[in-house]
Amino acid sequence: MALDHGLIGVENPPHERTWTAKDTMLYALGVGAGLSELEFTTEKGQRVLPTFAVLAAQAPGRRLGDFDPARLVHAEQSFELHRELPAAGGVRTTTKVTGIYDKGSGALVVTEARAVDLDTGEPVISGRSSLFIRGEGGFGGDRGPRDDWAAPDRAPDHKVTYPTLPEQALIYRLSGDYNPLHSDPEFAARAGFDRPILHGLCTYGVTGRALLHAVAGSDPGRFRAMSGRFSSPVFPGESLTVSIWVDGAEVLFRTAKDDGTVVIDRGRATIAGG
Amino acid sequence: MALDHGLIGVENPPHERTWTAKDTMLYALGVGAGLSELEFTTEKGQRVLPTFAVLAAQAPGRRLGDFDPARLVHAEQSFELHRELPAAGGVRTTTKVTGIYDKGSGALVVTEARAVDLDTGEPVISGRSSLFIRGEGGFGGDRGPRDDWAAPDRAPDHKVTYPTLPEQALIYRLSGDYNPLHSDPEFAARAGFDRPILHGLCTYGVTGRALLHAVAGSDPGRFRAMSGRFSSPVFPGESLTVSIWVDGAEVLFRTAKDDGTVVIDRGRATIAGG
Repeated sequence: MALDHGLIGVENPPHERTWTAKDTMLYALGVGAGLSELEFTTEKGQRVLPTFAVLAAQAPGRRLGDFDPARLVHAEQSFELHRELPAAGGVRTTTKVTGIYDKGSGALVVTEARAVDLDTGEPVISGRSSLFIRGEGGFGGDRGPRDDWAAPDRAPDHKVTYPTLPEQALIYRLSGDYNPLHSDPEFAARAGFDRPILHGLCTYGVTGRALLHAVAGSDPGRFRAMSGRFSSPVFPGESLTVSIWVDGAEVLFRTAKDDGTVVIDRGRATIAGG
Repeated sequence: MALDHGLIGVENPPHERTWTAKDTMLYALGVGAGLSELEFTTEKGQRVLPTFAVLAAQAPGRRLGDFDPARLVHAEQSFELHRELPAAGGVRTTTKVTGIYDKGSGALVVTEARAVDLDTGEPVISGRSSLFIRGEGGFGGDRGPRDDWAAPDRAPDHKVTYPTLPEQALIYRLSGDYNPLHSDPEFAARAGFDRPILHGLCTYGVTGRALLHAVAGSDPGRFRAMSGRFSSPVFPGESLTVSIWVDGAEVLFRTAKDDGTVVIDRGRATIAGG
């Protein structure tokens, strides 16, 4: 068996996850928040960066099949927040594969997550994560839904540049993703990189901070949804510029490195009125 | 009651503390270790920075008396390591106040700690911490032992300069010292500082890294003991230069900022042969 197409629609057992104020502070530092964002990096009036939702709603799924994990990359990530996340809290998450699409050179496996409050059972997070598995395409399946994203024909309404630290991946990984691709030079070399690369979800978190401060008045309560496609790796220490186009509550964005390489493409966010 | 002189010699109940590999990695990042010290900042062949001993052997003591905590500063810290610390482990620590000295303008309260391995009961760490309490001197007591420390009459054998990050205190505090003096600008202002200051034990940890790499061949197993006196505050983002004089296993050191202000004075370390 290679990729197991029988997984579609099969719900995984519920997974419970709790987090502490320290966890959410560490996450904020991991995605580059610092002295100018003390409400996220310290416990004084602490609030939670919306992108922490992706980690909160992660749950172990069934084995997707029998293939080299090196052929797997995180391709897309979206989430919707039904309420602001508390500094410390917990959710019960159920996940299932909702689609396996045939992209020719590989398969795109889409997993959806629904996280409810541990105590009340009320919806907190809906998430969707897509993994691209090189070499698993060509099975004669559907290519999947098309996305009509296009950058508006005007200059961005906001451009926000944030540095990342050389140590960024070392800090970020303590939030739970210990893949040595992000820390071990030898492992990174075997994967074809000159040095360890930043976690895609770290770049995603840096981008989420830019959106939060540029278009949501730094208020996580207004941040309703975000999606984007990972298009190129980032090395720790590189700066990230988020270009943002606003059309009411609907926001389009794209994140690029200093040399112009787009690293998160086809970005969308939903920001409620202030 | 102000300072309770009856505490001398009264042993506190044993305190158990365990730590995980994540705790010791977070500590290493907190004291400024990064990409060039992956054996301390990641779990691959992980080893532990010797100065983590101070945190491992911390234990809550009895209330020293009834006075404004703002009058209390960490004055001196020493530790002796009886064995190399494991990446994850645990100790049982007993502490007692061993002396209260009259320094005129204040009292110096010396507390000693003995930490033994949770499983085997074997000695792991001996520590000594001195707190200076402004306004509690003048009780007609002994001034305490004199220290004949003097910088050798020659240039240092090693000078090591490490930067600290502007975010250094925000990272360091997640190792457990949430005193707002190190994170909250308003609190720091009330204490008379323009902005939050770095934890003394963070400066101590940065200094320990310099000693480890300059004179212990980066081998924590050779690092036996370290002591120093906190003499001036450091702001996160400032660089620290450790001047080191070596005389066999006995090492003297002093840590200063770029402007020459000495921040850890009268430093001593014991490093075993390589």
